[in-house]
Order: sequence, then structure tokens, then C-alpha cells
Amino acid sequence: MSVNELSQRHALVLDAVHRLLRRGAMRNLGKMVNKMHPAEVAKVVRHLEDRTEKRIVVGLLEDLEARAEVLSELDPDSIVAVFTQMSTQAQLGVLRALSSDDAADLLGWLPPEVASTLIPQLTATDAEMVELLGYPEETAGGIMTPEFLAVPSTATAGDAIARLQGAADAEMVFYIYVVDAAGILEGVLSLRELLTVPPDRPVTQVMVTPVIRARVDVDQEEVARLTARYNLLAVPVVDEAERLVGIITVDDVIDVIREEATEDMLKMSGTSVDTEYTLTAGSFKAARLRIPWLLANVVGGVISALLLMYFSVTLKTVLAVTAFIPVSMALGGSLGLQSATIVVRGLATGRIELSDVRRVFMRESRVGAMVGLVCGGLVGLIAMAWQSPWLGLVVGVSLFLASCVAVTIGTLVPMLFESIKIDPAVASGPLVTMLNDLTGLLIYLSLATWMLWLLAPGGHP
Amino acid sequence: MSVNELSQRHALVLDAVHRLLRRGAMRNLGKMVNKMHPAEVAKVVRHLEDRTEKRIVVGLLEDLEARAEVLSELDPDSIVAVFTQMSTQAQLGVLRALSSDDAADLLGWLPPEVASTLIPQLTATDAEMVELLGYPEETAGGIMTPEFLAVPSTATAGDAIARLQGAADAEMVFYIYVVDAAGILEGVLSLRELLTVPPDRPVTQVMVTPVIRARVDVDQEEVARLTARYNLLAVPVVDEAERLVGIITVDDVIDVIREEATEDMLKMSGTSVDTEYTLTAGSFKAARLRIPWLLANVVGGVISALLLMYFSVTLKTVLAVTAFIPVSMALGGSLGLQSATIVVRGLATGRIELSDVRRVFMRESRVGAMVGLVCGGLVGLIAMAWQSPWLGLVVGVSLFLASCVAVTIGTLVPMLFESIKIDPAVASGPLVTMLNDLTGLLIYLSLATWMLWLLAPGGHP
Repeated sequence: MSVNELSQRHALVLDAVHRLLRRGAMRNLGKMVNKMHPAEVAKVVRHLEDRTEKRIVVGLLEDLEARAEVLSELDPDSIVAVFTQMSTQAQLGVLRALSSDDAADLLGWLPPEVASTLIPQLTATDAEMVELLGYPEETAGGIMTPEFLAVPSTATAGDAIARLQGAADAEMVFYIYVVDAAGILEGVLSLRELLTVPPDRPVTQVMVTPVIRARVDVDQEEVARLTARYNLLAVPVVDEAERLVGIITVDDVIDVIREEATEDMLKMSGTSVDTEYTLTAGSFKAARLRIPWLLANVVGGVISALLLMYFSVTLKTVLAVTAFIPVSMALGGSLGLQSATIVVRGLATGRIELSDVRRVFMRESRVGAMVGLVCGGLVGLIAMAWQSPWLGLVVGVSLFLASCVAVTIGTLVPMLFESIKIDPAVASGPLVTMLNDLTGLLIYLSLATWMLWLLAPGGHP
Repeated sequence: MSVNELSQRHALVLDAVHRLLRRGAMRNLGKMVNKMHPAEVAKVVRHLEDRTEKRIVVGLLEDLEARAEVLSELDPDSIVAVFTQMSTQAQLGVLRALSSDDAADLLGWLPPEVASTLIPQLTATDAEMVELLGYPEETAGGIMTPEFLAVPSTATAGDAIARLQGAADAEMVFYIYVVDAAGILEGVLSLRELLTVPPDRPVTQVMVTPVIRARVDVDQEEVARLTARYNLLAVPVVDEAERLVGIITVDDVIDVIREEATEDMLKMSGTSVDTEYTLTAGSFKAARLRIPWLLANVVGGVISALLLMYFSVTLKTVLAVTAFIPVSMALGGSLGLQSATIVVRGLATGRIELSDVRRVFMRESRVGAMVGLVCGGLVGLIAMAWQSPWLGLVVGVSLFLASCVAVTIGTLVPMLFESIKIDPAVASGPLVTMLNDLTGLLIYLSLATWMLWLLAPGGHP
């Protein structure tokens, strides 16, 4: 199936599911979903509005592995809603079918009373997933799976292949790790290399060293950067003593990269990842999460109002000054947001480091000056032709100054946040926009007042 | 090395390279870079300001494979600058060492006269990379590599393993594809599965069908979505006749996902991916790319000025009306940008489809109403206490109305773009902000004028 066929097919499937649900034709619906790829079922379930409907569709899946796979593709709220409706037997089956990292996440999202009844019923081998609960969600430890393949440094290539053939449940195997007697990571073997050497060759002669690795406590964003930079398929995770404790596979890294990008985009616009459109999330919750950053506008608006009243003599003297208030605020706000976006994204992808601050700042300053010249010149000329030469001059000069300030604020605010270890995406968008709106207004009104004072007979208005 | 150590190390390395370059200590520098991982060298080269310095460092790498790997991690401008300085012999060597997809990109970036002297010197097997030049850069065909492993449907598991052992240059092999006599893709074999079945088993009994695939002409974003959804390590690419012509490996997909996210973020703020901070890119070019969208502010500013002059009687009558102009513009602009960001990102990740328009719109409308009640109520009360009850009422009601309009525009503009096949990220940010600024202003001034007319003795001001 090609991509276009897939999305057409998806619309048809969703339609069919809706129809069967409405008719209560559970047998036909069951036949249909059991024939579908779990990723497709997940997509359908995500688009169902009703939680009962979600539960019905997932419940129809006979294979617990398939149920687990569908669940692992859903958003946390839907997962919990669907999961808590299952029988304890099915819950345990699903937990076992999930990879340990997903199972640990799920246990963490469940209401404590549900989780605490399930945990004692998990067998000793399931204990790993419980252990994973101990790591914060967005660290290497939180996203790793403890299911990896490792051989002792005394093994041969043949031993490693036998180990591979015997392993049933290792998630997406491409590398076999070599560890010493204490479990300390020593090297890595690629599957392909193993096939091309004689079976009696010691693994220490085939393995690659040193191994790129991540400590359990590093941020998941760092893991993503590492994977992208070194083109890895899996990153081994080690504890404080350099012992191998888990791996992070590339499919989980892709999820991290997508999530982090989504998060940064939403944060820049002053919302949060929890308001991402989950099609069923409550609008009340969304509004509650979005209002705090919009209050930046309220605060900015009140300060603007005070500024305008402070300069009311100027406005009363020449009403035309009012006409260019909007553009004096908007240009700086937008330009600053551009700078902030470039810096925030650069810091996230590693293209910009904190040590580049001087260079980034110099470049943005030049951009600010050029933008100020072009846009300030343009609006200044319009104001000159339409109103009066002196107002045109005031508008032009203040747009130029506001542009220079805007890129400065846009560059320095996220850099400052980064240096004091606050996520630069969090407050940059709304804060930079508000600061630049206010600066633009202040520059414009001050210049206009000063100019009026100069023009007034006797030197004051 | 853990992540923290890596970034500390990077600062030290960069420092050392700078020092050695300044002292002209080429032998020591050569020793140093030849011992480093190509990904690290690439990072160093990206941070050098001077093109001559970039060229020197890359030129010191003795291994052409390493040179190719460093080049493939750089931005197009630096690649061309460094590459064109090499000898023709080295250029040919690097082209051969690059994977075909990267080589084809490089040939495409070179000045035509340079590319046309190189292409005839490439041997027959290099012809593949030239063929790749034919596909647009951001399609499956443009990012695929023609180096994949395939066996005929008559082969056995043992044949497939032998094929794997014989293949030297296949890029990141994890799957072996099964094709019929005409080259049409029939199934896929996983490396691990091959190792666990008897060697004489026909591949048709081991292969997985149907295979998730991409047509050469689909957008790279669709390939990324497919890889993420189905957790694939490589996506096979087929032509119109369903013949297997290449594969896209997961490391390239990661690059696509990061690039697309960067692109969307920058576009939303009205810049373009070409202005992304490359540390050496010219500020003139950056300004030229950023000004067009800032002109949206100029146009919006001029329209605002006309509106304000149109309503000048109102402003002259009660100057305090001016005080709340900024907030009446800003709140709607920010709120609309939030909605637009959620929709743009949702469309990009596949969480939102065009068919969800009604549901997204309903949710955003509820959010808009709630935000309008809270923020409108707050600013309205402030205006009431500070100025006059009627102005408070005008401010509150217009903020409420502006919020409702803002979410509508923020939701519908990107959806409209998507439906007419314009990238919704491109114009949404600046356009939505400008439209909402203007609507907010228009609503506020109209309401204020109407209220003044009601309050005026005799029914008109």
C-alpha cells in the first residue's frame, strides 16, 4: 500500500467502524479490527470521540499483543480510560505484552489504587518494569527498555549468534553488547559483522569500542541528539558505575524527537503540550493551560494603557500620532519572535551553543538594522506623505530603533533562559512579544513627544 | 563517553583546534582530527567561521570515507565551499564514499560547470547517484538510496544470508527484500528471522507481506509519518510499476523529522528554513528572507492607521479609548497564534486530519469563549475601575468577541491552506496574527463608537 492509498483507506475504515458501532454489529466489527494492523487500529481508536467506543474496539482485539500495541500508540488519557475497563486478567496480559518501558509508563499513569493491586501480581521477571518506574519520565532511564542482548567478554562470535537465536523477546535487536563480569559495558557487535567472521573468533576482537552511551539520568533530548549525530539504531544506557542497564531503540527516539518538537512549538506560542489536540481532551482544561500565557497580553495591555495615558498630552495635541501606535508595536513583536524562534530551535537541535552568544547576537543585530531600515523607511515615507514630515521622521526612526531592540531581546531572552537552565522555549514566545510590543510603544511615544516639544513655539508644547 | 562528558569535551576540542589553526600547527592538527569521530569533526567544522579554516580541517582528514562523512553532516553552503577546493581526484573519491543519496544532493548543489566536469568521470556503478538527481529533493525518490539488498522470490533463507555476507556496501542493512522476476516488491525478510529458520526454507515462506512502502513521488513528510507509525527501520521505495527502486533508512528519516519540525517552527514565525542559524550565513540574505513576512505587519499597520483615523471622532471625544487599543489587538493575535500552532502541528504529525475540522473548530470555539470571558472580564473590570463603567463594558465585550473570532481565524486559516494544498505552516503565523490584530481593533473601535453614540445626548455624539 502506498501512502496515498493508506490515507484514503483510513477514511473508509473509520467510516465503516462508525457505522458498525452505531448498528451494534460487534461480530463484524471484531472480524474487521482483528484483520487490521495494530497501528491502523490505533489510528481509528484515536479518532473515536467516545471512551466507551474506544474501549469496545480495543476490547474486540483477541490478541493481547495487538491490544498492547494499540494501547502504546494512544495518548495517556485514552490509555488509562481503556485499560481500567479491562478485566484484571487482561490487564496483566497486556502489561506483559507491552515492552517494559511502555508498561512502566502505563503503571505510572494509572490511579495508585489500580496500580497497587496489579504490581504484586506481576511475576519476578516483570519486576524490571516496576524498577523502571523509579526513573523520571523524560530521562534516558525513563524511556529505556531493559530488554537487550549482551554477551560476556569471554564469548565467541558463534556464542553471540546462538544467544541471538535463543532470544525471543528482545525488542528490535541490531546490536549485541559485550559486558565484563561486573556488567560494565565494554563494546558493541553489529549483527551484520557477526555473520561475516568465523564463529570461533572472540567477540573482543570483533567488537567496536568505545561505545557511545547515555547515563540513566540524562535528558531524553540529549539521547535524541546523540542518536541523530551518530546515526545510531539503539543507544545503550549505563548507570553511575558504567554498568549496562538498558537500551533506547531508534523508534522510541523518533517519538522523542517528534514530541520535543511539538512541545517546543506549542511552548513558543504560549501553550503547553497538554493542550495538543487529542480530539477528545476537554476544552476547559485546554483553556486553563492557555490562559496563563495570554495574561502576558493582559499585563502588557495594562502597561500599554498606562503609557498611553502618561503620554496623553502628546496624543491630544496631534491625534495623528495615534494612527501609528499599532505598527510601532507589531513590527518589533514579530521581528523579536523570529529571532527567538531561530535561537530556541538552534539550541534544541544543537546548531547553536551558549558559547555562540556573541556571534548570534552580532548577526541578529545586523538583520535588525536592515529590517529597521527597510520597514521603518517604508512606513516613515507613508506617514510623511499622508500626515506630516515630522511624524514620518518620528515613525521611521522609532521603527528602526524598535527593530534593533527587538532582535536583541529576541536573542538574549532565550539564551539567558538556557544559561540559567530554564527551557528556553517555555516563556520566550509570549515574553519576547510582550517586551517588544512595550518597547516599541515607549520608543515611539517618547520620540513623538520630544519632537512635538522641539517643534512647539518657545521650545515646549 | 556520556552525554555531559561529550559536550565538555567538545568545548575543549574546539578550543584546541582554534589554537592549532592560529599557530599553523598543521601536523598536530592533522593527528588530532584523524583520531576523532567524523561526527565530532563535523561539529568542529560547523563552528569554524572561516571557510578556509573549514577547508583546511576537512583536507587534513586522510580517509576519504571520513571526509565524506564529515561533509554529509554540514550545511549545503559549507559543503560546496569545502568540496570545490579539493582536487578532482579527491572530489571523485568523496563522491564515491558518500551514499548515493548524499552524493546526488551534493552534485545538485554544485555550480553546473563543476558538476558537469565530474559526472562524465563517474563510473557506471556511480550512475545510480546521477539517476537520483532526477527526483525532487523533498520526495521519497529524492532521499532514498538505491543500495539495498534484494533476493528473487525463488531464493532460500540460506541464499539470502549468503547474499548478505557478500554485500559490502549496502547502507545499514536490517531488511532483505524479496522481488519477483520483474523486480516487483513482494515481501520483506528480517535479518533476525533469517537466522532462526533452516537454510533450505524458501524465502516466500519466511517473508512478511504486505510490505509498507512509499511511492517515489510522495512527500518526505509522509515517509516520516509512515516510519514513525509503523516503527520501521527502513521504508522501501517503489516506482509507478511497484518495482523496488530504493530504500530510505531510519537515520535519514530522523533527519527529515528534525528538518521538517525546524522548517515548520521557522515558517510559523514568518521566517524560512534558509535563515536557520548556520553560524556563518550572511545577515543580508537572512534579512532579505525575513522582511517579506514582516511586511504583513507594515500592511496591517497601515490598515490600522486608516481605521484609527476613520474613528478619530471617537478618539477625540474620549481620549481614554486610546488606552485600550493595544490590548484589544494583542490578545486576539496571541490567542489566534496558539490555535494556529496547534492546528499546524497537528496536521504535520497526523493527529489532526482535514476531516476533523468541525470537531477542532468546536473545541477551539469553547476555548475562545472561556479565554474571552476570563481575560475580557479582567481587563474590563480594570477599565471600569480606572476610567468609566461604559468603557469597561466596551473593553470587556470586545475582548470577548475578539477572542471568539481569533480562534476561528486561527483554526480555519491553516485548515484552508491544507485543503488547497498550501503548506499550512507557511503563512499561518504572520497572516493569522495580522488578521486578528485588525479584527480586534475593528471590534473595539466600532463598539466604543456605538456606545458613545448611545450615551450622547440626543442619541448621537
